[in-house]
Amino acid sequence: MINVGIIGATGYAGSELVRIISAHPDAQIKTLTSQSYAGKKYSEVYESYRHKDYICDEEDIEKMADECDVIFLALPHGVASKKVNENILSKTKIIDLGADFRLQNIETYENWYTTHYAKDILPEAIYGLCEINREKIKGKRIVANPGCYTSCSILSLYPLVKEKMIDLKTIIIDAKSGATGAGRGLSLANHYCELNESVKAYKVASHRHTPEIEEQLSYAAGEDVVLNFTPHLIPMDRGILATCYANLNKDYTYDDIRSAYEKYYKDEYFIRLTKEGTFPETKWVKGSNFVDIGFTIDKRTNRVIVIGALDNLFKGAAGQAVQNMNILFGLDEKTGIDFVPVFPA
Amino acid sequence: MINVGIIGATGYAGSELVRIISAHPDAQIKTLTSQSYAGKKYSEVYESYRHKDYICDEEDIEKMADECDVIFLALPHGVASKKVNENILSKTKIIDLGADFRLQNIETYENWYTTHYAKDILPEAIYGLCEINREKIKGKRIVANPGCYTSCSILSLYPLVKEKMIDLKTIIIDAKSGATGAGRGLSLANHYCELNESVKAYKVASHRHTPEIEEQLSYAAGEDVVLNFTPHLIPMDRGILATCYANLNKDYTYDDIRSAYEKYYKDEYFIRLTKEGTFPETKWVKGSNFVDIGFTIDKRTNRVIVIGALDNLFKGAAGQAVQNMNILFGLDEKTGIDFVPVFPA
Amino acid sequence: MINVGIIGATGYAGSELVRIISAHPDAQIKTLTSQSYAGKKYSEVYESYRHKDYICDEEDIEKMADECDVIFLALPHGVASKKVNENILSKTKIIDLGADFRLQNIETYENWYTTHYAKDILPEAIYGLCEINREKIKGKRIVANPGCYTSCSILSLYPLVKEKMIDLKTIIIDAKSGATGAGRGLSLANHYCELNESVKAYKVASHRHTPEIEEQLSYAAGEDVVLNFTPHLIPMDRGILATCYANLNKDYTYDDIRSAYEKYYKDEYFIRLTKEGTFPETKWVKGSNFVDIGFTIDKRTNRVIVIGALDNLFKGAAGQAVQNMNILFGLDEKTGIDFVPVFPA
Amino acid sequence: MINVGIIGATGYAGSELVRIISAHPDAQIKTLTSQSYAGKKYSEVYESYRHKDYICDEEDIEKMADECDVIFLALPHGVASKKVNENILSKTKIIDLGADFRLQNIETYENWYTTHYAKDILPEAIYGLCEINREKIKGKRIVANPGCYTSCSILSLYPLVKEKMIDLKTIIIDAKSGATGAGRGLSLANHYCELNESVKAYKVASHRHTPEIEEQLSYAAGEDVVLNFTPHLIPMDRGILATCYANLNKDYTYDDIRSAYEKYYKDEYFIRLTKEGTFPETKWVKGSNFVDIGFTIDKRTNRVIVIGALDNLFKGAAGQAVQNMNILFGLDEKTGIDFVPVFPA
Repeated sequence: MINVGIIGATGYAGSELVRIISAHPDAQIKTLTSQSYAGKKYSEVYESYRHKDYICDEEDIEKMADECDVIFLALPHGVASKKVNENILSKTKIIDLGADFRLQNIETYENWYTTHYAKDILPEAIYGLCEINREKIKGKRIVANPGCYTSCSILSLYPLVKEKMIDLKTIIIDAKSGATGAGRGLSLANHYCELNESVKAYKVASHRHTPEIEEQLSYAAGEDVVLNFTPHLIPMDRGILATCYANLNKDYTYDDIRSAYEKYYKDEYFIRLTKEGTFPETKWVKGSNFVDIGFTIDKRTNRVIVIGALDNLFKGAAGQAVQNMNILFGLDEKTGIDFVPVFPA
Repeated sequence: MINVGIIGATGYAGSELVRIISAHPDAQIKTLTSQSYAGKKYSEVYESYRHKDYICDEEDIEKMADECDVIFLALPHGVASKKVNENILSKTKIIDLGADFRLQNIETYENWYTTHYAKDILPEAIYGLCEINREKIKGKRIVANPGCYTSCSILSLYPLVKEKMIDLKTIIIDAKSGATGAGRGLSLANHYCELNESVKAYKVASHRHTPEIEEQLSYAAGEDVVLNFTPHLIPMDRGILATCYANLNKDYTYDDIRSAYEKYYKDEYFIRLTKEGTFPETKWVKGSNFVDIGFTIDKRTNRVIVIGALDNLFKGAAGQAVQNMNILFGLDEKTGIDFVPVFPA
Repeated sequence: MINVGIIGATGYAGSELVRIISAHPDAQIKTLTSQSYAGKKYSEVYESYRHKDYICDEEDIEKMADECDVIFLALPHGVASKKVNENILSKTKIIDLGADFRLQNIETYENWYTTHYAKDILPEAIYGLCEINREKIKGKRIVANPGCYTSCSILSLYPLVKEKMIDLKTIIIDAKSGATGAGRGLSLANHYCELNESVKAYKVASHRHTPEIEEQLSYAAGEDVVLNFTPHLIPMDRGILATCYANLNKDYTYDDIRSAYEKYYKDEYFIRLTKEGTFPETKWVKGSNFVDIGFTIDKRTNRVIVIGALDNLFKGAAGQAVQNMNILFGLDEKTGIDFVPVFPA
Repeated sequence: MINVGIIGATGYAGSELVRIISAHPDAQIKTLTSQSYAGKKYSEVYESYRHKDYICDEEDIEKMADECDVIFLALPHGVASKKVNENILSKTKIIDLGADFRLQNIETYENWYTTHYAKDILPEAIYGLCEINREKIKGKRIVANPGCYTSCSILSLYPLVKEKMIDLKTIIIDAKSGATGAGRGLSLANHYCELNESVKAYKVASHRHTPEIEEQLSYAAGEDVVLNFTPHLIPMDRGILATCYANLNKDYTYDDIRSAYEKYYKDEYFIRLTKEGTFPETKWVKGSNFVDIGFTIDKRTNRVIVIGALDNLFKGAAGQAVQNMNILFGLDEKTGIDFVPVFPA
């Protein structure tokens, strides 16, 4: 059994991790911590756990590193980079669900986020987008689990970028997310009556997932990619839909594009291509680790429109984190996360 | 492996059965049928199943009886009683999610529903409320899986009725259900814009779960129980909350009442009593087989108020049906249905 | 033109007042105040007001009393009773949307709320349930605008209590409210993902609207009424549905009961009785001052079930407050509040 | 008083017209018709009208033309063009909320829709986007009321197109709509549990509002505009948000762009520009005739992102239709439609 520690277990991503690990056949929760609820029963924070006796501990990462085979960090940005160091990594593996180890370009990180406190560690971290970086993840000590928007956006566009089928200067990603993406913290924006029955864009041209998408797509392209990314808040709990636009470099047919997607994804269990004329909907991936991807070509504008969908708390956070754990520990990648989507949910 | 047949697999309860059985360690789907979608891929009906190759078959219950160890029926009332007969029962077990075998009183059934076509079979059927009838379920050939409202209502009141702590003439159950309870059929009442952002009562003093609750509580009481049951439709997908009122027969304390609940439920894994001062919410049981029950005493009126919550598609339908299957086949009752509730979902 | 002051204009009830008064043909906003947003443009608090130049002022009730013909108070309980005094009332009229002047029994008020600071003023205050107390409201200096649950509950039961058709010891009110009832303040309970897709009871047997309902129904009955009131939170913005149960004192027919309702309400524009077999739904009154009431008799239990619906922010707060203003100033009672319900909204 | 006829009064757009006209100070409902509910009381179709005695009539447009000063048509496409002819127009004015008279290019219409049966009338019809075509609307006999998506999209982009500030080949409109946009007809897609808690794109690269947007923007540009338009369905009742992307032709500043918008809209009451850094949300325009527009420049990609919001049933349908009526009859354009948005609603 893999002994698991979870730091930040009472946020939404953390609680989804607890839910997955608690039923994982090859892993068990050793310690879960919470800054806000330390000392309380986990079932007081999430009453769904009435039948479990989990306790929220004070965080002591040194002790956890001794006792746990892997520690998941579900923390605000800027905190993880203060906690992770060589000593910790010499004793346990780290899977960080936050942003601190996602951007290899430190200048970009510090521009968009804050000071980075583990610059020595950063080069060792691997961007844990499993379907793209699987081989590089194996054997690593620290994995930067991708953001929810970024997982969806990158996987939706990767084959087109890699195969140079689209004009990299024309990429526009218009994304829609449910409210769990904003976390459990209180704010007027998340008040039920303020969010319900309305839709809005936010952080227009300034969302921090932009450089993360760009860095990864630049690796794929072999050149710098700069793009537009616009997130929207949707009155629902879970799910991300990314509608991606780009000009085609040639008069590609549907089958040309399809071949590119199949080249990279045909053996990927968690990526499901929709049939021609059918497009992803977030409800069909909810509660699962699947990413559904569909596309069409608009001949009138010679643009491809690619639509990707995933569950932001699952494949966009906790599910992919466990997928990374499975890779790190040599398990079947699907272990403990092979759920049929829950519908209606 | 238990070979499972599901008749009526494309309704919401049927699809939840498919979801549960598809991940059950000791059972597998042998045949699933659908009147509306026969011949289609299941993934065309529920795109959540894109990664599975299930096919909707024409129903042939004779053939299924030969091939399946158990057949689940998820059909409109009046249909199951035409399909089940001695020949079928001699070859397979039946778990009926509909109403046809729930009421032992045929006159009551025919008053509230329609003609009954299997009066010979009816006496053999056991009411599959697992926590109450566990021992009687074992060895049976046919189980009548309880209704969603009824499971919640009966379990909420059973200890008080059994222990004669409440005045049976004063029972009022005010229940609230999410929209999946009304099924996947089209109607103006289920149109998004008609149901969204509104609440209403329906079938006031005339809902068919009333006699079902009464019959079971009458067994518990050893005398006839007549009560009020009022269902309400809530703008959400899943979940039932039953708020139950009754006059206390004596000046009972909270602890008196608590003892009654613990007498019957303290070893029941799927029944969770909330702490004093805390009451169930449907979100804490969603996607799980749990029933949460809490109560308080209003000294001013000498009434007990008991609140029960469950997921209508899970413990209220498919989950309990699988719990019944587990009992029938001698498995650990939790097998394949021991899910932590999904929150937020 | 009536010059209007609104103290507490940035809560949900206050903002609904602003919306109604801003379009009222015989009234105009003179001053609106906000503790949290003093000095800000109102359109920064509610961007729906982009086309208006309202400003949130610091509260100065003395100055407002000089300048305004009427002041609406939309404040937390315990605050209004500190602000209102003889000097204020000598200069302006007060319509208080809070609880401070609703209970004439000071002991009851102080048991359920807090210390009362205007005991001298209290006897003068009239409970502003317009359809019941219309004549008593005229000429008053201070009106206690009823609570949302209470308006709905009292109007639903009043004719039956007044006509002594029901057993007063058997009254149970099971109420359901949208989330605006809990106001705009931040709390985990109001966080979108916590409230969405779930239903719960709250303040079971302890909600402060209980004594308010009881006091008014006791006046109607001519004797003390003690009852059960259980509020539930529904995942929607607006609307209250009250499902009321009581034992009938005799074998009344539907028409007997109907006659009682028509005796009191047949000329009441804002009370609409539904047709036999039809029951209120909150969507049909949303954005309006209407209260819809329907009922049925359950012969099996000899109980009457009465269902009332209103918009908690309109008839349950701001709309009725303006109705009271119209009465105080001798206007047609419908002036400025005669809206067709907004559906779908 | 203007005598108004409404054909198709029981759809969502038709019912919103009824709501607005019923409170319009200078208009009154003379006849309202419904194919599905002819002979029924309007309050049986919409119980919000319990206090009104409107009746759904059989449609008789000839008789209505004699009796009404204006007839609103709220019909499926292809029906209006069969009903409107010279005789009708000689007796009354027509405001058509459907698509039949929106596209002046008949070939385009017949490609995207169906056969057109009033080709002789079409040239006379004016596209009733009031803020753009106000002067041309005056005196007309027939107005084609714009689509919901199109009103939002065109008004969001018009100044940039007119002033040639953007590259016309790069326009992408990613739009999000509430469910009322799909009407009251039954379909699985509109079933509550199917639409709730999910987001999807639909009619990708094939929605019929595309040519309508293109035709109007082509007029503004003085050259052909071809663009991408992708609609999405959002789990809410009302509201459209259009997120528009285009490459800037030069290095424009925020103020340059702002000047363009103010040039065209500064005196437009119903168009509200948001402050820099603030973007429209559908909740701030709900229940009103306002269009809110905001924008930013992404220097990194030299793209402008413009976001527009309106209420699809109000400014996107019935409200603008009444605005057109006001123009046709020489009334103040705001008469009867100058509502503060309803929030929370």
